[in-house]
Amino acid sequence: MKLKKHEIDERLAKLSGWQHADDTIKKEFKLKDFSESMGFVVKIALEAERVQHHPDITIEYNRVKIVLTTHSEEGLTAKDFDLAEKIEKFIKA
Amino acid sequence: MKLKKHEIDERLAKLSGWQHADDTIKKEFKLKDFSESMGFVVKIALEAERVQHHPDITIEYNRVKIVLTTHSEEGLTAKDFDLAEKIEKFIKA
Repeated sequence: MKLKKHEIDERLAKLSGWQHADDTIKKEFKLKDFSESMGFVVKIALEAERVQHHPDITIEYNRVKIVLTTHSEEGLTAKDFDLAEKIEKFIKA
Repeated sequence: MKLKKHEIDERLAKLSGWQHADDTIKKEFKLKDFSESMGFVVKIALEAERVQHHPDITIEYNRVKIVLTTHSEEGLTAKDFDLAEKIEKFIKA
């Protein structure tokens, strides 16, 4: 279910460095090198398959850009924020 | 060593579907689903590490976009075309 504006604001406030734009939330992560970037992306990919919710992912050597939205709802849902929180855990792990 | 225009044209002619723009070559591949996209990307990533030449990679569910350039030469080199040819073999394998 598509989140309302105040729900988006609440969940966004719990995240660090994520930008809200055009029905998406996005963040660019800086890693050590390409190998670290890929390790991070593979963790995200496995979680994405587990929950069947797939972000757009861009790898530019040591930078990984993630864009989350829920296409079926044409907006942001809890799935996007749940996955964003998981992604933050991967980067801290 | 940066390739000359006629060398770029020669190597580009051997590839299918790659576009040459702004000192890069790029292609969008369409896969079956996210899992197939990730399998393809991991193959590319392992080869990129082996040859120490890293493309920009974007994964959007079943689409994988690859952009190749040689930053150190500020242009296209044989490395870019060698990797593009390998990538084509992965998609056919």
